[in-house]
Amino acid sequence: MDTTTVKAFGAESKTADLKEMNIERREVTANDVEIDILFCGVCHSDLHTARNDWGGSKYPAVPGHEIVGRITNVGAEVTNFKVGDLAAVGCMVDSCRECENCKQNLEQYCTQGMVGTYNGNDKHLGGHTFGGYSEKVVVDKNYVLRVPENLDLAAVAPLLCAGITTYSPLKHWNVNENSKVAVVGLGGLGHMAIKLAKGLGAHVSLFSRSPEKTQDALDLGADQVVISTNEEEMQKVQGKFDVIIDTVPYEHDLNPYVSTLNVSGTLVLLGFIGNLESIISTVPIVLGRRSIAGSLIGGIAETQEMLDFCGEKNIVSDIEMINMQNINEAYERMLKSDVKYRFVIDMKSLKN
Amino acid sequence: MDTTTVKAFGAESKTADLKEMNIERREVTANDVEIDILFCGVCHSDLHTARNDWGGSKYPAVPGHEIVGRITNVGAEVTNFKVGDLAAVGCMVDSCRECENCKQNLEQYCTQGMVGTYNGNDKHLGGHTFGGYSEKVVVDKNYVLRVPENLDLAAVAPLLCAGITTYSPLKHWNVNENSKVAVVGLGGLGHMAIKLAKGLGAHVSLFSRSPEKTQDALDLGADQVVISTNEEEMQKVQGKFDVIIDTVPYEHDLNPYVSTLNVSGTLVLLGFIGNLESIISTVPIVLGRRSIAGSLIGGIAETQEMLDFCGEKNIVSDIEMINMQNINEAYERMLKSDVKYRFVIDMKSLKN
Repeated sequence: MDTTTVKAFGAESKTADLKEMNIERREVTANDVEIDILFCGVCHSDLHTARNDWGGSKYPAVPGHEIVGRITNVGAEVTNFKVGDLAAVGCMVDSCRECENCKQNLEQYCTQGMVGTYNGNDKHLGGHTFGGYSEKVVVDKNYVLRVPENLDLAAVAPLLCAGITTYSPLKHWNVNENSKVAVVGLGGLGHMAIKLAKGLGAHVSLFSRSPEKTQDALDLGADQVVISTNEEEMQKVQGKFDVIIDTVPYEHDLNPYVSTLNVSGTLVLLGFIGNLESIISTVPIVLGRRSIAGSLIGGIAETQEMLDFCGEKNIVSDIEMINMQNINEAYERMLKSDVKYRFVIDMKSLKN
Repeated sequence: MDTTTVKAFGAESKTADLKEMNIERREVTANDVEIDILFCGVCHSDLHTARNDWGGSKYPAVPGHEIVGRITNVGAEVTNFKVGDLAAVGCMVDSCRECENCKQNLEQYCTQGMVGTYNGNDKHLGGHTFGGYSEKVVVDKNYVLRVPENLDLAAVAPLLCAGITTYSPLKHWNVNENSKVAVVGLGGLGHMAIKLAKGLGAHVSLFSRSPEKTQDALDLGADQVVISTNEEEMQKVQGKFDVIIDTVPYEHDLNPYVSTLNVSGTLVLLGFIGNLESIISTVPIVLGRRSIAGSLIGGIAETQEMLDFCGEKNIVSDIEMINMQNINEAYERMLKSDVKYRFVIDMKSLKN
């Protein structure tokens, strides 16, 4: 298969800094779209993959799955996109398309495993897929998204992962203008959860351990901040929330939050993949028909719906723009939560 | 307030056997219904209350909240029941009627706490309520159920707790003829879960640790039995179930069951009120949008719906009838799961 060499930024091993390298992109086949990448958001998964924190990383690892760009070529069978269009790519570039989940537009739960935008199995070239820290990407038309023209493109990039990851559970658990939503954790996911829940018309609270985040949360649109270490404040919100969006990326005790759900309420875990070693009491769960649930990104159709919704409501991420060459420093700052609220790489910097 | 003395069976302390005693029932007030009790099912909660296993038991404790009988008197304002009608009473005899949950027919989740049929705060006489191990009971008309005439009355009694406890989550999580349901535990709740899920048209599996329960489960209507200690059988059902009804009344590991849920599937805990000390992995929860939930009996309107449904589908409990005088022996057998599947007291035995 014909390929083109493009510049990228990646890690050669789990202990190596990311650095400039060349990778191959396939020439567009009949159903492909080639995108010149303008902006790429920086997700915690990028860092975890580069450093093999979850195991299974393949090297060289070129992360990046919050991709926004402009189409530079399309295959003969592509009718839904044309050269010059804006386009976006999120966390997946393919899936089996045949399983029950794919058929229900739930490709993120593909029983064969979705093809990740990076570190996935490349069906075309063999080997593994390379993400958005690169000049160009070539993606099957069915996994490419349209981007509303009215939004700040750089600030759109994080919608492709942080946005859809929070939008999908808000929709699945029927958040609307009658809902009371609480968000746990104010980072990339948490700040999008506040904006999107507000966009859907809900009353939105942030749980925070630190009062100094209060003004930030209110600025983002939250209606109130509940200091979770303050017993009196926690007492006031017992039984109050329909949905809690829990974005905390490490093991933590869910019990204090569960009892703030109302009857039939659901706490949705988005950030923590691992073992909940803290003991969970079933008392508030059984006595209040409450649920503890999880959710993973969203399907392609739902991601498009989210982008269109953000276009209509003028919702984007709060970002800090960096050059590609500063990615290693950005990773260190992410580990300290020193970013409001998402780094986005200006991919011009790679081309210079 | 005028009262009548009636015979009952109760415990004077947490270490005492149940024995015959006299209790007072109020004379019917304007909105009351007086019921001559014909049959009363024996629930594990009866035993836990008699022995103060959960703390908070008040003595003398007269258990029983699976009550079926015939109406012997009604108050002046009662128009929906008349003397001679069959009637039933379940786990509650009152609630605040004013909170958000009560207003939504979810009296079981009353924010003021429902008034339990026994061990509740008696609003009329003060003190605590006495349950169905007695000749008669007087209950507000809004908490009395109608009983279909076509069913075996003794076998209807367990529907008032075991039946509604399993029916309510099946309905809340939308079980229908397209659903795949699995049941964990084959006791009073489990056997009703199989019958009711089948009645709703679902494909029903039983998880069991012991192959000797297979024939019983199939006889009750289960489509298959999955031996949970058999890795090959468990492998075959990964991702298969929409709803799992977990009736196990003690701490157990949920992880093997969670991974047998399909995308958006829910495991509902009904039997275990306590701490889940086993570590829960969020991996299958997040990666499959699965939920761990709980549920508590059902509201009055839903209990009536369940009874009508059982009348229509000819569903009752499998029971073993006992005399009131054998209750202490029955409790010992319940502790060994030596009953298929519910003891029901023939209340004639108390009157002799």
